[in-house]
Amino acid sequence: MNDDILTRLGATLESRKGASADSSYVAGLYSRGVDVMARKVGEEAVETILAAKDGDRAGLIREIADLWFHSLVLLASQGGGVQDILTELARREGISGHVEKAARIGVGAGAE
Amino acid sequence: MNDDILTRLGATLESRKGASADSSYVAGLYSRGVDVMARKVGEEAVETILAAKDGDRAGLIREIADLWFHSLVLLASQGGGVQDILTELARREGISGHVEKAARIGVGAGAE
Amino acid sequence: MNDDILTRLGATLESRKGASADSSYVAGLYSRGVDVMARKVGEEAVETILAAKDGDRAGLIREIADLWFHSLVLLASQGGGVQDILTELARREGISGHVEKAARIGVGAGAE
Amino acid sequence: MNDDILTRLGATLESRKGASADSSYVAGLYSRGVDVMARKVGEEAVETILAAKDGDRAGLIREIADLWFHSLVLLASQGGGVQDILTELARREGISGHVEKAARIGVGAGAE
Repeated sequence: MNDDILTRLGATLESRKGASADSSYVAGLYSRGVDVMARKVGEEAVETILAAKDGDRAGLIREIADLWFHSLVLLASQGGGVQDILTELARREGISGHVEKAARIGVGAGAE
Repeated sequence: MNDDILTRLGATLESRKGASADSSYVAGLYSRGVDVMARKVGEEAVETILAAKDGDRAGLIREIADLWFHSLVLLASQGGGVQDILTELARREGISGHVEKAARIGVGAGAE
Repeated sequence: MNDDILTRLGATLESRKGASADSSYVAGLYSRGVDVMARKVGEEAVETILAAKDGDRAGLIREIADLWFHSLVLLASQGGGVQDILTELARREGISGHVEKAARIGVGAGAE
Repeated sequence: MNDDILTRLGATLESRKGASADSSYVAGLYSRGVDVMARKVGEEAVETILAAKDGDRAGLIREIADLWFHSLVLLASQGGGVQDILTELARREGISGHVEKAARIGVGAGAE
C-alpha cells in the first residue's frame, strides 16, 4: 500500500511533464525552472527544522511530506523518479552502524 | 517492493531506539539530540540543491535518499514514522493542480 | 562610512520596534514572530547558494545583503544588534588559520 | 570602528587568495571550491535558525557572525568584497516599509 501512494505520486509527476504551466501546481514548478524547485526544497527543509524544534509531531509529518514531495518534483524535472530513491535506500541496506556512515561519507553525501 | 524497503527502514530506525549511542550511526544521532538531527536535514537539503544545480542526476538521487533518511531519523526521534508520511501524501491525493497548492498553503506547509 | 550604513541600519531596525505591524516591512516581520524571520534567513541563504552556483556576482551581492539584513532583523527581535556581530568578528581577529577553525569548533559554531 | 573590523576582515580574506591551501582556514576553503563554501553558508544559516528558536542570544550572535564570515569568504572567492555588501545596503536606504519590500521583490531578492 505504501508502494501504491509513492508509485501513484511518481506517475502523477510524470504526467504533468506535458502539461501547460498553468494547468497544475507541478506543471507550474517545472516551467519555472531549477532555482524555483530547489528553493522549495530549501524552504521545506527549514519548515521541517522549525517543526522539529517545536516538538510539533503533526506539523513535522506535514513538513516532511512537503519535503519529500518537492524533492520528487525536482528529481522528476531532471529525469529521475521515486524508484531511484527507493533503489538507493535499498542499496544501503545491510550497511549499518558506523560502517554505513563511512559509506555515506565515501559518496560525498554530507554525513561529515 | 518499494513498500518493503521503506517498511524495513522504518523498522530499523525503531530498533535503534534502545541501542547505545556508539552501537550505530542512527543511535548516535538519537543521542545527540534534535539540533544535530535537524542540522543533518538542513545539510542534505543543501547537498540536494547543489546536485540539482549541477544537473548531476546520480548525485541528486543520492542526496535525496540522504534527505529522506535523515528526515525519517528526525521524525522517529519524535515518535513518528514512515507510515505517517505515506498517509499524509495519500491524504493529499485527489487534490490536484492549483487546488492542491491552495490546500497546502492552508496547512501552512510552505507552498507560498 | 561602512560604519555609517550599518549603524544607521541598526538604528532603523530599533526604531521599527514600536511601530504597528503594517507600518513597515520590518515591523511586519517582528509581529509575525521568530518562525517567519528564521524562514527569511533560510530563504536568503538558499538564494545566496543559488547565485554562487551561477557565478552571478551581482546577484550574489544582493542575496548576501538580503541575508545580512534579515539576520539583523532576527537578532534585533531578540534584543541584539549590529554592534554585537562586529564585536564578535573583532574578537576572533588575531585567531587565524587552522587555529581559528579550531576555536570556532570549540564554540560550537558549525565549522565542523 | 565597525568600519575597521569589516575592512580588516575584507583585507584578510583578500590576502588569503595567494596562500597555499593548508596555510589557513580561509585558504583551505578557497581551494575546496564553491560547493564547500556554499555548504558552509547553508550550515551557518541552519545554526542561526536553531539558536533563534532556542532564544539563545549569545549563540545567535556567534552564529550570525559565522554566517557573515562565510558569506564573505564565498563572495571573495567570486571577486566581490565587504564594500559591495555595504554599498548594496546603503543603496536600499530611504526605501522603507512596504515600498522597500516591493523593491526587493523586484530585484528577485527572495523577499517574497
